[in-house]
Amino acid sequence: MANPDSDHDETATVDVVGVGNAIVDVITQCPDDFVESQGLTKNSMTLIDEDRAHELYGLMGAGIEASGGSAANTMAGVASFGGTSSYIGKVFDDELGEVFANDMRGVGVNFDMNRATTGPSTARCLILVTPDAQRTMSTYLGISSLLEPDDIEPATVESGQLLFCEGYLWDIDSAKAAIRKALTIAGAAGRRTALTLSDLFCVERHREEFRELVAGPVDILFANRQELRGLYEIDDLDAAIEAVRADVELACITVGKEGSVLVTPNERIEIEAEEIAPVVDTTGAGDQYAAGVLFGLAQGFDLAKCGYFGSLAAAEVISHVGPRPLQSLKDLAGL
Amino acid sequence: MANPDSDHDETATVDVVGVGNAIVDVITQCPDDFVESQGLTKNSMTLIDEDRAHELYGLMGAGIEASGGSAANTMAGVASFGGTSSYIGKVFDDELGEVFANDMRGVGVNFDMNRATTGPSTARCLILVTPDAQRTMSTYLGISSLLEPDDIEPATVESGQLLFCEGYLWDIDSAKAAIRKALTIAGAAGRRTALTLSDLFCVERHREEFRELVAGPVDILFANRQELRGLYEIDDLDAAIEAVRADVELACITVGKEGSVLVTPNERIEIEAEEIAPVVDTTGAGDQYAAGVLFGLAQGFDLAKCGYFGSLAAAEVISHVGPRPLQSLKDLAGL
Repeated sequence: MANPDSDHDETATVDVVGVGNAIVDVITQCPDDFVESQGLTKNSMTLIDEDRAHELYGLMGAGIEASGGSAANTMAGVASFGGTSSYIGKVFDDELGEVFANDMRGVGVNFDMNRATTGPSTARCLILVTPDAQRTMSTYLGISSLLEPDDIEPATVESGQLLFCEGYLWDIDSAKAAIRKALTIAGAAGRRTALTLSDLFCVERHREEFRELVAGPVDILFANRQELRGLYEIDDLDAAIEAVRADVELACITVGKEGSVLVTPNERIEIEAEEIAPVVDTTGAGDQYAAGVLFGLAQGFDLAKCGYFGSLAAAEVISHVGPRPLQSLKDLAGL
Repeated sequence: MANPDSDHDETATVDVVGVGNAIVDVITQCPDDFVESQGLTKNSMTLIDEDRAHELYGLMGAGIEASGGSAANTMAGVASFGGTSSYIGKVFDDELGEVFANDMRGVGVNFDMNRATTGPSTARCLILVTPDAQRTMSTYLGISSLLEPDDIEPATVESGQLLFCEGYLWDIDSAKAAIRKALTIAGAAGRRTALTLSDLFCVERHREEFRELVAGPVDILFANRQELRGLYEIDDLDAAIEAVRADVELACITVGKEGSVLVTPNERIEIEAEEIAPVVDTTGAGDQYAAGVLFGLAQGFDLAKCGYFGSLAAAEVISHVGPRPLQSLKDLAGL
C-alpha cells in the first residue's frame, strides 16, 4: 500500500483525472415550502426524467445556469489551485454541451471528449437553494449517464497521478463498466484511485458494490459522515471510521461545520472548517473539498496541508452562488 | 402633452409593456487586455454573427448564463418592485429559449410569445466584465432581431400604462416596423411611450431615425450622457438637455456615478446615485434605472421618487454579477 503523501509519479503528466456525470446546473433560490411541496428531500439528489425536468423547471423561479457535475467541479477546483487536471464525461452537441465544454476549457481543464450527436441531450441539474444555504438537487442525467467503456481512453487515465471517480455514475451498467475499466487501467499503471460516495441515497442504492470497490480497487475514499455511516450501516461515526480504515489507504470524511477527518491505517488528522460568513450556497462544497485534498496529494503535500486545502476550497465555494470557485484557489492558498 | 406623473389610466391592466431583443447573457470576468486583444470597445455593445459568437465564446473563460436583454431586464425590474409587466420579444424553441421564457415567468413577467421553430437560434450576449466592473458586450442577435409587426399583439400593447422600447431593436427593418406599430397602437390607446437609446454606437447608426422618433411618437426618453450628446451632436450636456426638453415630455439622463437628471419642459430634477461598494458588475444598470422610473411613473409617484427608484434599482444590480435584481426591489424601496 503506497503512502498517500509519497512523492508523485514522474511518468504522470497531469495531477488528477476525473470521471463523472457532465452536467449543467440551473440554480435558483426558493423558500423551504417549495422543496416540500415538490416532494424533494432537502440536501439530497433525486434523479428525474426529462418530462419531470421540464415540469419542475417551469415551476422554479428565475435562475442562473453554470456548469456543474461533481467530479467536473472538482477538476475545475484542482485547476484553480494551479494544478493540472483532465475530465472524462459525456455531453451532447447542443447549447448546454457547448457551455459545459467551454467552461472546462475556460478554467484550464483538459476536456477532449467529442460531443455526442445521437442520444439524449446534455444533462442538467435543477438546484433549489433554500434560505439556510442548503441545496436540493433534481438531476436529469441525459447523455451523461451513457458513459461507456469506449469513452475511457487509457492514455488519459494513465496521464494522471490520481484518478477520481464519482459515485453518482453508478446507476447505469455501461457507466459502471466504464468506471471499472478506468480503475483497472489506473491500478495497472500504478496510479492512486479515489472515489466519492456522492450522496446518501446513492450509497443506499449501491451499498454492496460500493463496499466491494472500497475494499478493492479504490485507494482513497471521500464521503460525508452520513454516507460513511450508510456505507457500513454503522450508526457510530468513530466505528464507521475504524471500518473504512481497514479498507482504504486514505479516507477523507467531511463533517459539515466541524470540518473534516482524514484517516489512514495509522494516522487520524482532524481539520477545522474555514470560517465563512455568510454561507450563501453550499452547492459544490464537497466537490471543492475533494479538489483541495487531491491537489495536495498530487503535489506531495502532507496530509494536514491537503486537508487545509480542502477546507479552504470548500469555504470559497459556499461563500457565493454557483458550484465552482470564483476566486483563484492558488492565490487564496498563498501558493 | 400629458403630465408624466399624472394619475394612471384605469383601463390599462399592466404597468409597463416592454419590447426588445430577447437574449440570454453569458457573463465572464476577464482582464482588460483580453477586451483589447479582441478589438472590442469597453463598455459598449458590438453585434457579432454566429461564427464569431462561437469563436469568441471559445476564447472566453468559464462563465455563467443568465437571462438578459435590455427591455427584458427592465420588465424583470418592474416586477421586482411589485409592479406588473409584459414582454414582447422573440426566442427560438431551443434550450436557451426555454431558459429565457422560464426566467421571465419566474419573476412574474407576462411572456406569452410562442417559441419560433424555424430560423436562427435564441440570441446570446457574451459579456466580458473587467476588474473595474465595466462590461463589454458582444451580441449574436439570432432570432431576437427577427421581430415582426405580426409579433405585436395590439391587446398586449394596449394593456400597459406605458410602452417601453429599446433602441437595440433598431437594426433590422422588420423590427423597426414592429416598434413603429407598437408606438402607433400605444399612442392611439392614449398610452405613454418610452424609448431607451441603448448604446452610443446604436445612436450613431440610427441618429436620424431616433431623432424623428424622439420628436414624434416617443413621450419619454432614457439615455446616458454620451448617448444624449450623440443624438443631438452637441458636446455640452446642458445644451443637449435643452434640446431633448423640446422633444419629449420627460427625459431621464443617467450620468454614471453622479446619478441622473430628469427633465420635463418645465422641471429639472437631479437625483443622486445610491452609494454602493464594491461595484461588482455594471451590467444592467441602465435597464434597472429605467425599471425604477417606469414603475414609479406607472404607479403615479412624483418624479423625484421615480428617479430615486431608478437609482435604487441600479445600485442593487451593480452590487453583484448578473443583469437582473437578486433582491426584492419592493422590499429595498420599503413598499
